[in-house]
Amino acid sequence: MTGNQSSEKKELIKKENFSEWYDNILLEAKIADDRYPVKGFTVYTGWGFATAKRIIAMLEEKLDASGHDPMQFPVVIPEDSFQKEEKHIKGFSGEVFWITHAGDNELERRLVLRPTSETAIYPMFKLWTRSHADLPIRMNQTCNVYRYETKATRPLYRGREFLWNEGHTAHATYEEAEANVLMAIDIYSQVYDALGISYIRLKRPEFDKFAGADYSVAFDAWNPDGRSNQIGTVHQLGYNFGKAFEITYENEKGEQVNATNTCYGMGFGRTLAAVISQHGDDHGLILPPIIAPKQVVVIPIPVKGKEEISKSYAKEVAKTLTDAGIRMVLDDDDRLRPGEKYYKWEMFGVPLRLEVGPREADSKTVTFVRRDTFEKSKAELKDLPAVTRNLFAAVQENLATRSKKVLEERLTTASTTDQLRDYMEQKKLVRINWCGDVSCAEKLKEQVSGEIRGTLWDHREEPTGPCIVCGDEAKCVAYVSRTY
Amino acid sequence: MTGNQSSEKKELIKKENFSEWYDNILLEAKIADDRYPVKGFTVYTGWGFATAKRIIAMLEEKLDASGHDPMQFPVVIPEDSFQKEEKHIKGFSGEVFWITHAGDNELERRLVLRPTSETAIYPMFKLWTRSHADLPIRMNQTCNVYRYETKATRPLYRGREFLWNEGHTAHATYEEAEANVLMAIDIYSQVYDALGISYIRLKRPEFDKFAGADYSVAFDAWNPDGRSNQIGTVHQLGYNFGKAFEITYENEKGEQVNATNTCYGMGFGRTLAAVISQHGDDHGLILPPIIAPKQVVVIPIPVKGKEEISKSYAKEVAKTLTDAGIRMVLDDDDRLRPGEKYYKWEMFGVPLRLEVGPREADSKTVTFVRRDTFEKSKAELKDLPAVTRNLFAAVQENLATRSKKVLEERLTTASTTDQLRDYMEQKKLVRINWCGDVSCAEKLKEQVSGEIRGTLWDHREEPTGPCIVCGDEAKCVAYVSRTY
Repeated sequence: MTGNQSSEKKELIKKENFSEWYDNILLEAKIADDRYPVKGFTVYTGWGFATAKRIIAMLEEKLDASGHDPMQFPVVIPEDSFQKEEKHIKGFSGEVFWITHAGDNELERRLVLRPTSETAIYPMFKLWTRSHADLPIRMNQTCNVYRYETKATRPLYRGREFLWNEGHTAHATYEEAEANVLMAIDIYSQVYDALGISYIRLKRPEFDKFAGADYSVAFDAWNPDGRSNQIGTVHQLGYNFGKAFEITYENEKGEQVNATNTCYGMGFGRTLAAVISQHGDDHGLILPPIIAPKQVVVIPIPVKGKEEISKSYAKEVAKTLTDAGIRMVLDDDDRLRPGEKYYKWEMFGVPLRLEVGPREADSKTVTFVRRDTFEKSKAELKDLPAVTRNLFAAVQENLATRSKKVLEERLTTASTTDQLRDYMEQKKLVRINWCGDVSCAEKLKEQVSGEIRGTLWDHREEPTGPCIVCGDEAKCVAYVSRTY
Repeated sequence: MTGNQSSEKKELIKKENFSEWYDNILLEAKIADDRYPVKGFTVYTGWGFATAKRIIAMLEEKLDASGHDPMQFPVVIPEDSFQKEEKHIKGFSGEVFWITHAGDNELERRLVLRPTSETAIYPMFKLWTRSHADLPIRMNQTCNVYRYETKATRPLYRGREFLWNEGHTAHATYEEAEANVLMAIDIYSQVYDALGISYIRLKRPEFDKFAGADYSVAFDAWNPDGRSNQIGTVHQLGYNFGKAFEITYENEKGEQVNATNTCYGMGFGRTLAAVISQHGDDHGLILPPIIAPKQVVVIPIPVKGKEEISKSYAKEVAKTLTDAGIRMVLDDDDRLRPGEKYYKWEMFGVPLRLEVGPREADSKTVTFVRRDTFEKSKAELKDLPAVTRNLFAAVQENLATRSKKVLEERLTTASTTDQLRDYMEQKKLVRINWCGDVSCAEKLKEQVSGEIRGTLWDHREEPTGPCIVCGDEAKCVAYVSRTY
């Protein structure tokens, strides 16, 4: 029996029905359960949250190493703080949850459930900033934020509660804040790259930047249904919040000067959704070894009369892996046949399967099956840890390469709105020439099922013709896709 | 200059004014900042949250190893779920925050901000439980819960938002739930013991058990001000929630049977408060090496003309520690004198200080100073990792021993309420003979500044005389202390 014949239940085909495929994986691989009785609020179940925790730890470690203090701010923000930065409140006031009562009492001052934490954090930055020596401040917190989404919700992609890490900084100069924006983009890129997911980095158009920011850079991951999945954003806030929240320090001349701020957020639900959706196949999840809660499953192959030989050798193999610090699960449950176990662990996306029977026990070898390619290979027991690590690297690289290839195939250029409309149907990510006017962006959105997501962040592309909407001179090359 | 002469600012004396000492440490050692503009909501700042995260990781690792799946449930609970278990709602309804509006709309169904998650989790347990094979369920989540406390709030000890880990289980039989209660008590004890904090484990009296539980076991840590600090609780919920939330499974006879539940919570704020308050001294924090964000501080001692020798040797020492996996900080900031650095890192409670000057560089040695005793010792550079680890073990043991000694000194027995009142003033934890009646417990609370906390959980103590309140026959030996 080979791996790709192991599944016994009817499979959902990812290419044919992404949405059903995705919902099935969330439940079957114990990622999340969307049956919680409040719309837009999802339960992260065991395997999903164990995986998410490893993504969180990867990011937190990099933030820690780059001088971001871990902190935790309250979930509630008083109404007056929340309303201090004018554009920010305009952007968020329509979508916040309000706490108005406690016990049997009406609160004197209504509280907002944080939709993001600038207005919680910056009043404290004000207290902490006296002199130049107090800057920069760099902090981060992993927490949930709350937005009363009116668009359709979708588990991990778009919920009313979402789990993220938000970083916030204060700096003495705009230049230092700019350098910090670069650092944050680099840190986020490192995490996504380690997960093998592909994305483009776009500077959002003015009308779509973070409420209160000078500019916003977003990471848009490709998604099988053609929608962009915004997995992270980095914002240059300039002086906007520093002024509104009076974050000032005394410079060398004894003058009070406003500090500048930056902030950034990585959504763990959406990042996990990108891992599931970009890497997964018709058998289920495929997890990059770096975040898989279990990296290897060891399955003893029973041969009549030699069951104990398989089992005892499987234990030896399992111990060798554990001693080498590899996250391993030994599935020696007698009630299931090997094929049923293959099916189960394929669904959970465990990167490597080790099949060990009497033959392997005799020759002190193991048989590997890769989850990503179903390729089989053999190794000697004495080489097990090294071979396993090499295979992890190979899986990791293959996932990244496959994902990158899809992104490249999706990128194309449209020179008319008709062509753009066709490409949207084909789930493409499309370059267009754009005059930069918001009115053209709005018209475009009405005419096709996608919208303008921004311009490349790290280098300028020269337009190759007039704006595809109004025909006037184009100012930039913009990227259009469907969105969540 | 020896360690205990290093501090230059006025010290707050822990024994003389615990409250002021504690508040000062929270700010100076960057544990928490209580100036957030909503009463009862505190900001965890960098050093405090980094320390808390290590306590969290210790517990989560043990829960993981004992089969508790990590999950994350929503913070909001719909009003109808919240009200399903009668005693539970009675216990909590007076102290919950209500979300009533979102954006500009009034919600059709009000939402409670979870005060604890039974009523969020058990409706999902119902969906997950079909047959005997689905049980047991064991899960845990680290999250914040919200209670509108009317008592005085105090950072980490008592807030309206508090950070904890809650474990929840479902079992086929009451016996299995009982075994799980034992396991949970054991896991919690292991964590507290590793932190070197001392506590007694009490079965709470009927009137003070968790709302909806059959019985509750609590961990009460001693506190310098004589109040008990409840750092964790474990509850046998019996069939109460299983019935209210219809968590049933089909047994072998094909009958639908109710499952039983247990739950437990460890408060990280209070556990951190216990670490601070039990171990700290007039110089500041003393952190057990196992959770210290930095375990060793390396300080180069400048000697005129030989500054670079000290600095370069300090770097070598620092690298040796880092390579050995020891969390180290090298403080080679030229703007501060060594004494100022000693003062700073003593406040942060870093367990070991390494002083390295030209003499140490010459002889390839290091000078250690222990934070807990200020004892000095020397070691050769080649032995550095091993000696450091031995000193960690010595610090850890000394902290636990000191803390245990205080607890033992505080334990005493009162045979009259007058004597009990005196003991409360002396911050004692006092055994009394009690008839078990709630009316006597209430009278006691009116007469002295403490209250009945419960009876020893793990063995029965025989009363040695009549109830000290009513004079009737005593049924048990109860423990009395002040509380938060």
